Amino acid sequence: MTVVRRTSFEGVNCSIAQCLEVIGDWWSPLILRDAMFGVTRFDDFQSRLGISRNILTDRLDHLVARGVLERQQDPQHARRWDYRLTDRGRDLWIVLTAMREWGDRWAAPDGPPVAMRHDSCEHTATMVPACSHCGSQLRPGEIHPEPGSGATDPHFIPRRD
Amino acid sequence: MTVVRRTSFEGVNCSIAQCLEVIGDWWSPLILRDAMFGVTRFDDFQSRLGISRNILTDRLDHLVARGVLERQQDPQHARRWDYRLTDRGRDLWIVLTAMREWGDRWAAPDGPPVAMRHDSCEHTATMVPACSHCGSQLRPGEIHPEPGSGATDPHFIPRRD
Repeated sequence: MTVVRRTSFEGVNCSIAQCLEVIGDWWSPLILRDAMFGVTRFDDFQSRLGISRNILTDRLDHLVARGVLERQQDPQHARRWDYRLTDRGRDLWIVLTAMREWGDRWAAPDGPPVAMRHDSCEHTATMVPACSHCGSQLRPGEIHPEPGSGATDPHFIPRRD
Repeated sequence: MTVVRRTSFEGVNCSIAQCLEVIGDWWSPLILRDAMFGVTRFDDFQSRLGISRNILTDRLDHLVARGVLERQQDPQHARRWDYRLTDRGRDLWIVLTAMREWGDRWAAPDGPPVAMRHDSCEHTATMVPACSHCGSQLRPGEIHPEPGSGATDPHFIPRRD
């Protein structure tokens, strides 16, 4: 399937678009998933993802250019390069966790392929979205969008009739 | 820019891939963002996103087929259709919120375009990922993947050396 994509969301004042600018294709989130699993080598990404070398090179270059992965020469093998998450990349763990858990809830009839262990309490856990102010659980009907400090378009959040 | 995509991740036993199967392109998350803002009409999606009618039709059909939006005839206008989130679609709010807040942290130099108000405490809030078992904040260094109840491939989570 061939799709024509907009060249860039760079100028769009929306933080979801800015996140898509980094991970907005099918492969990038799976590459980042493997990076979070500790995968660093080109050949390991390739064999795990079953992806062509061309596409993988293109996606890794993109993720390096966007500052979420960094390329480092393997000290033992001058011609081998490692790809490691930057702080900016590691911080995407919440996005990937939210995606994984949505898939677990709605598209994993045989159970979650991967679970998450919380080291400090030693239990298998899921992520509960809590309010940064009051600490109680955030629920979709109890939150509403409002203009942020960087808002530029007064009509961006539509009025609810 | 033209990219060739894998046809489907349907058979891949990974919940991130299953989530991408639904929202894994640039436009779908922005369509869902607008749906969460309360946008329902084709023309409103189109004018807000600046997207061609062809692509928008294709993406809406995809989201309806995947069960995250449903199409309903407008009772006042026989030829007008509304698109509304299903429960499955509404549950993607955590993914979109995680994407938005990542963009706010790393790609919004002038401040967040959109903030989130928590109705029950009446404060502007961000989402804190909390552990479903102990309730404390989840931090990336303190969580580890483990095989879930639906795991099929013993090598899917690589051993850390």
